[in-house]
Amino acid sequence: MAEEQKHQVVMIGAGPASLAAAVYTTREDIETLLFEKGVIGGLAAITDWVDNYPGFPKGLAGLDLAESLRQQAERFGAKIELGEVMSIKDEGTYKRLATTSGDILAEAVLIATGSDYKKLGIPGEQEYYGRGVHYCATCDGAFYRDKHLVVVGGGNSAVQESLFLTKFASKIDLLVRSELRASEVLIHELEKHKDKITVHTNVTTDEIVGKDSKVEKVVGTDTKTGKKREFPTDGVFVFIGLDPNTGFLADSGVELDELRLVKTDVNLQTSMPGVFAAGDVRSGATMQIASAVGEGATAALMIRKYLEDAHQTHEMPAVPATVNAE
Amino acid sequence: MAEEQKHQVVMIGAGPASLAAAVYTTREDIETLLFEKGVIGGLAAITDWVDNYPGFPKGLAGLDLAESLRQQAERFGAKIELGEVMSIKDEGTYKRLATTSGDILAEAVLIATGSDYKKLGIPGEQEYYGRGVHYCATCDGAFYRDKHLVVVGGGNSAVQESLFLTKFASKIDLLVRSELRASEVLIHELEKHKDKITVHTNVTTDEIVGKDSKVEKVVGTDTKTGKKREFPTDGVFVFIGLDPNTGFLADSGVELDELRLVKTDVNLQTSMPGVFAAGDVRSGATMQIASAVGEGATAALMIRKYLEDAHQTHEMPAVPATVNAE
Repeated sequence: MAEEQKHQVVMIGAGPASLAAAVYTTREDIETLLFEKGVIGGLAAITDWVDNYPGFPKGLAGLDLAESLRQQAERFGAKIELGEVMSIKDEGTYKRLATTSGDILAEAVLIATGSDYKKLGIPGEQEYYGRGVHYCATCDGAFYRDKHLVVVGGGNSAVQESLFLTKFASKIDLLVRSELRASEVLIHELEKHKDKITVHTNVTTDEIVGKDSKVEKVVGTDTKTGKKREFPTDGVFVFIGLDPNTGFLADSGVELDELRLVKTDVNLQTSMPGVFAAGDVRSGATMQIASAVGEGATAALMIRKYLEDAHQTHEMPAVPATVNAE
Repeated sequence: MAEEQKHQVVMIGAGPASLAAAVYTTREDIETLLFEKGVIGGLAAITDWVDNYPGFPKGLAGLDLAESLRQQAERFGAKIELGEVMSIKDEGTYKRLATTSGDILAEAVLIATGSDYKKLGIPGEQEYYGRGVHYCATCDGAFYRDKHLVVVGGGNSAVQESLFLTKFASKIDLLVRSELRASEVLIHELEKHKDKITVHTNVTTDEIVGKDSKVEKVVGTDTKTGKKREFPTDGVFVFIGLDPNTGFLADSGVELDELRLVKTDVNLQTSMPGVFAAGDVRSGATMQIASAVGEGATAALMIRKYLEDAHQTHEMPAVPATVNAE
């Protein structure tokens, strides 16, 4: 049997976090392979317009940012392979990754598979994604100054984000499938904002309708009366939860939090030594490109330190980490 | 007596961390004032060329990046004032800042004053700063592939960074004022790299000499013999420690670590509620622009949450934080 491919660093996912990390590792001649099962650039690549990634005063298209990140990582020698990592196993010096291209071994691993926003799965949702249908108020709320919005969801995040969106929108219809499941304090806040936010409980969200690539209304059903309801709007924000891409970590021993996001320590290391996590898949993630990129850079430096220590401790006892100490 | 100016958020320092944070806060209509006592853009602004800030595949001039960050923050309404914050005091809802323009009050504060690299204070050091004289191997090491380097310093970081620089440089002279003060394991590593690194103990670094804006040699003195020594080189890296800009926090109650960097929790909050820290001034900082920007974005979201909670708890009991929970 042929020996498995060995790599210094394997990064799982090729979104902003790992592309940024790869700029750092490869620029320092640490051999790095990225595995991506979907789109290079991750959620950034399918974001219409990014207004708040620092360094671009006028904003830029998400696809352009993704492409720049890819070019920069490849410029220093990062290799990107299309394929999926199905599992990860700690074998000491090396981690064994089962992939669609067979088993590979890595001295260090960065988990940067991101999280997806949960979708409604209704007509019009995909069609208007990023151009009227949104999942992140911090990212896209500011595009709706003095506009009408529909918000979908009934939990804490839907209520919290609706309150936040009152900074911009002049009117918000909040569609709740059954009853509100938010905390009392948030429901109290909601009442204080009833000039702007109207709550519609027991209303399903069935279809997003638009014309000429602009959203015009949301169609729902009142589940008590069975009647159709229509909500004219300029945009739709959906807050029904996150779906972290951590399925492949089941039984790996890498610890997840209660939302199935990857837990890390202050050095962004997971519970498995030599395996790090950054970006939207990390417990505490802000779902922001800038944060993901920053964590990617930090993770790369921690990975370098891990590799240096690992090589040194093969012959010598370990020393305590010194970061920025003279 | 006139009432003090009140602000929602005051950011101390206007480098990458707080400019990124200000993009986020002001884009969400959170009124934000930045205080800068030196250069807008911080260390980035005085960095000749930035190769590893993600999003710019070919790199860009530090000054251009700093200017873009400033423009982006100002585009959303951030105000930048030139002046110095001398102290900070917790008065509950507001923090009181003594500044060169008088006392001001802030609901939330971001400490982003950065750290400076300690300087040798010798002729030529300032003149060739960023163009032959460097303080960060991760940032600038890659510019010296197959070149000769002089490294100055005798502690762990000088040795560690010398070892790191062997990835690029073909020859390194390490100048140590007295004796090496690095850990045994590092000194052992140094011996393993003696083909590339030559250690010169008891040699002071007196002058950096160049021509046509290129460094040509370092002049030192052997303190045992009193003789002048010359080291021809393409560049100089100085690792004699960090100087965090935290003097104004003395007696404030904001906790510092043993290097005088500001301690934060996972939400980047310091030991003083409502006061956050990000970038090079934060304990654990990587001294990387990307990390500072990422922390700035994250801090902004934490500040927003802090302000929301503070406004709600004026009337209602506090609820546990929910980040990304449905």
